[in-house]
This record gives sequence, structure tokens and C-alpha cells, in this order.
Amino acid sequence: MSGGKRLRPLLLVLAARMGDPGRDDLLRAATAIEVLHTATLIHDDIVDGAETRRGVPTAVERYGREIAAAAGDYLFAETFSELAGVGDARLIRAFAEASVGLAVGELEQYRANGANVEVEAYLEHIRKKTAGLFRVACVAGGTLGGLSLAQIDALATYGQALGVAFQMSDDIMDLVGKPGLMGKGIGTDLAEGTVTLPVIFALREGDAGTIRRVLTDPSPAPELLEAGIEAVLATDAVARTEEWARGEIEGALRDLDLLPDCPERDFLESVAAEVVGRDA
Amino acid sequence: MSGGKRLRPLLLVLAARMGDPGRDDLLRAATAIEVLHTATLIHDDIVDGAETRRGVPTAVERYGREIAAAAGDYLFAETFSELAGVGDARLIRAFAEASVGLAVGELEQYRANGANVEVEAYLEHIRKKTAGLFRVACVAGGTLGGLSLAQIDALATYGQALGVAFQMSDDIMDLVGKPGLMGKGIGTDLAEGTVTLPVIFALREGDAGTIRRVLTDPSPAPELLEAGIEAVLATDAVARTEEWARGEIEGALRDLDLLPDCPERDFLESVAAEVVGRDA
Repeated sequence: MSGGKRLRPLLLVLAARMGDPGRDDLLRAATAIEVLHTATLIHDDIVDGAETRRGVPTAVERYGREIAAAAGDYLFAETFSELAGVGDARLIRAFAEASVGLAVGELEQYRANGANVEVEAYLEHIRKKTAGLFRVACVAGGTLGGLSLAQIDALATYGQALGVAFQMSDDIMDLVGKPGLMGKGIGTDLAEGTVTLPVIFALREGDAGTIRRVLTDPSPAPELLEAGIEAVLATDAVARTEEWARGEIEGALRDLDLLPDCPERDFLESVAAEVVGRDA
Repeated sequence: MSGGKRLRPLLLVLAARMGDPGRDDLLRAATAIEVLHTATLIHDDIVDGAETRRGVPTAVERYGREIAAAAGDYLFAETFSELAGVGDARLIRAFAEASVGLAVGELEQYRANGANVEVEAYLEHIRKKTAGLFRVACVAGGTLGGLSLAQIDALATYGQALGVAFQMSDDIMDLVGKPGLMGKGIGTDLAEGTVTLPVIFALREGDAGTIRRVLTDPSPAPELLEAGIEAVLATDAVARTEEWARGEIEGALRDLDLLPDCPERDFLESVAAEVVGRDA
């Protein structure tokens, strides 16, 4: 209802349909990935103290931290309850590993916020968080479809690269906005002290003093936030981030070549193209 | 290190050893139940704003709510990661169902706190929380041991009754103290607004006004708390709770009769006796 794109279940279903998945299992696994994603959004919003998401109040804003935390726990438990219904140990393993990565990423966030972040640390973080979910969606789909191990590996690499590019594209949109309706306010990451890839580049090349002032201010004034965004946009940080994201997508498309030529593969290709195109 | 009794892994191992479990699987499952228990303690302490547990500062007190929440998420994910290593779908199902119950119990806590709680609601709550963990420990053990479905059922009923009795015994100790070193301060439940079984009884029979004042005060003064404890102890609430716990234990012991006569069964019997004896 709140306008999520259901991108992760879409990836899962497309990956699965390259083979021959059981209908009930597919529905359960697709539910599990979206429910897990929602659980992480709710817990992340608690960490970030986020007031809105996709233009509507967050759970933490509406019900308080305790209820939001318990709701996230509930959704997390439901994820594995759905998966238990499928009863495939490989699926459980893939989801459990991804969940450990998500929780470690959640813990790291505190150390990263506002502090110096290097590109490597940034990449490691988003591989666990955004890309971890994309990857497990693709792996789970391939597993349910009964694809070969080599094909599932290709899907894993595709999902990971797609997720990394998706996050970078998200980082850019936080600075330049997004065509059409925009749920998230511009500069949200900066205001929350989240050091994204373009911000890392800009800290090196641009007016680091201003940017750092925004990052370390617990609640920066609109003028300061605006100055911070402009300091980032005055550098070629966005262009460099776009370039990196395109490189990831090129890698993702190469991985898809290892998969059978079918309508689902075409669709996965267009999903990849869409991710780097969405800021255009 | 902090003096936990490892009661849940003990139950799991005893139940498993009534059959013939694989050594590695047993270790993983015993780890999983203790890690899940720890995850719920950390999240419950956030909800309750608890400052100490077993005499040492809680994670939320030491590291703040966000890090404690993320640490709980991490342990929760690790639970299923351990279980994925076992690869038995029945185990995953049992843990996932128990986890859903724990999360629902966590959510219900807000509605129950300080408000009117009936005996039925109390029982439903502790069946999901304390007893849910005891039950899944016994079921997981029986499953790994390769016991029959009827035997696993008997273990489930034993675990559930044991957990209910354990919680009631815990409720009593919050009022009358515990022999030897005491981690939890007396009256903690009352001060946190948690309506336990003896408190439900005392609200009906005793000085409900005083008890309710303690329950609804976000931070009751020591004198008020003392008066609240005395108001409960002036009734036969503790005796009635003890009686109920003993009834649960009797039921648990009857369930054990369905299991093979072996040293592990003797041990499970003595665990049950210990639970109602620990306030003596």
C-alpha cells in the first residue's frame, strides 16, 4: 500500500522461473524475502530515527521504538516461519547467512556514522545490507527453480552487483532528487550522518569542512544541509558514483550471459538497466 | 560468564540423549537455543528499560538501545544460521514457530503492562515467552534424538508445563527473594509495571489501590514499592501461585512417564522438582 516496488520478490520469482519451481514454495519464499526486507527497514528506521519512508510516517515515528522493534522481530521470525514451510535447508542457509550480514551491517552503522568512512568499508557495508538481500533473493529463486550450482552462482553475482549499483543509485538520488513523487526528502542521508559513496568522494575533493559539519550535526539547519548538498554537487562525486554503478551493472549483465536465454533473463537485464537509469 | 544456568540447552541435550542424536547437530541446536534465549533477553531488557540482569549491567544499559537492538538481531540471525547447519526442516519449523510466539509476546507486553491482566491473558503470554523456549528446547532435542512423534509430543507438553511453572516460580522470587546471590532486585516486576500471577491474585483479594499505584508509576519510590510488595504478601497470592506451579509440575511429571525409563528421564524429573523447589 505504501508504494514499495516489491523488487526483491520480483528478482526471486524471475530467477526461479528460469527453472521449474513449485508454486507454493515460490509464494512462500517470495513472501519471506519481502517480509525480511520490511523487518530490516523497520529496524533501520529505529537506528536512524527516521520520521518518514516512502512519504508516510515510519513505524518508529507512529508507534514508538519498542513496538517498532518488536514488530521487526515478529517479521523476522515470520521470515523463517515461511521458509520452514518450504523445508529446503539450502534456502534456510542462504536466508540465515544474509540475515547475519544484515545484523552485522546494522551494528557497523554506529561505528560508520559521521566518522571517516573509506570506500572499502562503504562497499563492505552495502554488500551486507542492500546487496545481501538482492543476492539472497536471486540465490533462493535459482535454488527453488532447480538450477545448476554454476547458474545459481551466476545469479548470486548478478544479485550482488545489482544491489551495489542500486544502493549507489539511491545515494545519488538523496543528493539530486528523483523524477516524480519523492518519498524521501533530499539530503536525508547527509542529515542523518550517513556517509554514502558520493559523500566519500566529495570529502576528498571538495569543501570537506562544510560536509563534515553537516554529517556531525545531530540535526542540521536547512541552510547548513543545503550548503552540504551543494558542496558535494560542486565536485564530480556524483559522476564518479554513477560511473561505478554502471561498472557494477556491466558486471551483472555479463553474469546473466551464463544463464539460459529466456524471457526471464531479458527481464533481469532490463531490471539492471533500470537501476542505473532511474536517476536519469 | 554472567551466571546463566544454561537450562534450555540442558533440556535440549537431555531430551536428545533419550535417543541417538548426532554429536555436531546436538551442539549446534544447543547453541541455537541458548543464543535465541539471549537474543530475547536483550530485546526484553530494551522494552523494560532494565538496568541490570543477573547482577551485571544489561546490554541496553551499557551500549544504548540501538546497539543492543542490533546485537539482538544478530543473535537471532545466528540462531537460524546454526540451525541451517543442522539442516533438519522440523527443527527450523519448531524454532521459527517459537520465535513468532516470542515476538508476539514481546508486542503484547505493551498492552499488558500496568493495565488489567486476567489469568488467561497471563497464561497465554508466558506460554509464548518463557514456556515457548522450554518447549522448543525439548522438541528440538527429541527430534534430534530420533524419538517417536508420541514421545516428542510428551516432551513438548513437559517443556511447556515446566516453563509455565518456572515463570511462576520466577514471579514469586520477585516478591520474596531468592536464597543466595540475587541478580534481580526484589520488586523489579512490580516496579516495571509487569503484572505477574501473584499480582493478579493480590489485585483481586488485597489492597488493589496501593498495588495499582506501584504498577502505574513509571518510577516508584522505594517506600511505595515496599508498600506494594507488602500489599501482595498480605494476601495468599504467593501460596496460590505456588500451588498452581506445583500443579503444572505434576502434569509435567506425568508426561515424562510416556518416555523410556533412562537416566535422562530421571534428570528431567529432578529439573522439574528443582523448579518448584527453588523458592523454598
